[in-house]
Amino acid sequence: MPREQQQREEAPPGYVPPMSPEEVAAVEALLCYEFKDKSLVGLALTHGSFYLPYRSGDATYERLEYLGDAVLTCLVSREVFLTYRDLPPGPLTRLRAANVDKEKLARIAVDHGIHRFLRHKAPKLEEQIADFVKELCQYEYHSNGLLDAPKVLSDIVESLIGAIYLDSKYNQELVWQVFRKLANPLISLETLGKHPVSELLEFGQKTGRIVDISKDGWVKDTKVDVFVDGVLVASATYAQKKEIASNRAAKAALDKLKEKSGQSDVLSAPGEAPEPLDELGRAGALELQ
Amino acid sequence: MPREQQQREEAPPGYVPPMSPEEVAAVEALLCYEFKDKSLVGLALTHGSFYLPYRSGDATYERLEYLGDAVLTCLVSREVFLTYRDLPPGPLTRLRAANVDKEKLARIAVDHGIHRFLRHKAPKLEEQIADFVKELCQYEYHSNGLLDAPKVLSDIVESLIGAIYLDSKYNQELVWQVFRKLANPLISLETLGKHPVSELLEFGQKTGRIVDISKDGWVKDTKVDVFVDGVLVASATYAQKKEIASNRAAKAALDKLKEKSGQSDVLSAPGEAPEPLDELGRAGALELQ
Repeated sequence: MPREQQQREEAPPGYVPPMSPEEVAAVEALLCYEFKDKSLVGLALTHGSFYLPYRSGDATYERLEYLGDAVLTCLVSREVFLTYRDLPPGPLTRLRAANVDKEKLARIAVDHGIHRFLRHKAPKLEEQIADFVKELCQYEYHSNGLLDAPKVLSDIVESLIGAIYLDSKYNQELVWQVFRKLANPLISLETLGKHPVSELLEFGQKTGRIVDISKDGWVKDTKVDVFVDGVLVASATYAQKKEIASNRAAKAALDKLKEKSGQSDVLSAPGEAPEPLDELGRAGALELQ
Repeated sequence: MPREQQQREEAPPGYVPPMSPEEVAAVEALLCYEFKDKSLVGLALTHGSFYLPYRSGDATYERLEYLGDAVLTCLVSREVFLTYRDLPPGPLTRLRAANVDKEKLARIAVDHGIHRFLRHKAPKLEEQIADFVKELCQYEYHSNGLLDAPKVLSDIVESLIGAIYLDSKYNQELVWQVFRKLANPLISLETLGKHPVSELLEFGQKTGRIVDISKDGWVKDTKVDVFVDGVLVASATYAQKKEIASNRAAKAALDKLKEKSGQSDVLSAPGEAPEPLDELGRAGALELQ
């Protein structure tokens, strides 16, 4: 059979190549959860590429990831709802997002070495993971859009959570216990950073300066430029994703603007009234940290 | 105090004007759930405008809505996950969305008369609700983007679900019992319709015809036109939302194309091979129903 055709053949339905009992035990140990159905562990850690040269069949982590994502969103919603009893839905949603987004979950995978158990045959994934691991330590809690977290890492955290939810017969308190430990420390109102693009646009609004994050040239040379009042302030290049390039350019521009004045009032208009509270009720959100 | 300034004053914090015991009991009866904390019922049904001429404070349904939305998403995810054991995440997500989206939840509010207990002072809401109620009966399960469901109606279903989740100390099985009864019948793979814009674009791809849904004129005259191979096939106007106008124009175009041929193969290219399965594994999805 020609190789191309062979690659399109489905993997045998429902078959999950077993994981060794030692590996299963290692995953259970790092999750602090013992599975009744051990086969869920292998399933939750199996990427579609694992079946090469077959086409990936139904036995990958994708359905568990779908379930785990919904369970996590619910439990983290409850947590921030109960922790911040007066916070309106807008900031609640931002806090929830920061605790269940791709980067936070990918960080959890790396922090606990969950990524070492991922079963795949896509060498490119290894590179992406290695790059992410290298850059991760630069940001204590969250990069707010500067890091390009590999989706596969957040996927397997969600799929393992989905697996625990299933295995425990939908015991959300048990799932929460596991996640709470893995995710420690959760991002709080105090550690929730600002997205650099929002921060830069707010700066423009507050100071009456015209901020232009120009992505026109990205397709040509993967570069995004930031102009303030028509003057080029900073640029960043990132070939894989335009959004990451924009976020990095915005961050570089903010750093330049702050450095230039060397003062905390750099991002305020001259003679401006005291800073209003930002949407999270924190004062001086645009000033130097 | 001038009226304008008075309007900006916050409502007293945490104060929820009480709901009569008769009304609370009526809501409990229609939910088949008896609240321990009766004040949650009033809170879940209080729109920001209820505090006029004060500015709405913290005592509105918004936080409960945020919580209920997350809980519902989780429980409906589980339901479709368990019902369709081989379905991939894409169709699972579509099925979930159809059962928790604005229209489905607004339909639940109307079907059970929950909207009659909404506390607000925004006459425009009454109009929107009345329009929606009038049009609803045209669609057995879901209009798939043709109806403009008032968000306030889905909000109060979510907030009541959030209130039950809180009141029952996070008892998801109890919440599910209540929702399952309210939402009956849930939208299944068999009753899940197609979104008219997707259906029209698929038709273009399959038949090699150029479909253009032109929204350029919407701002001027709230009209969206559909061209197939450069010929105007149908139009629709809807002033409130461009998206609804587009969906209605796409639906009108599909109806025209089907009517024109009067045959079930209208949406297939001539001499085409038998229909492939669509993403939900159903054959002939583009043919006449």
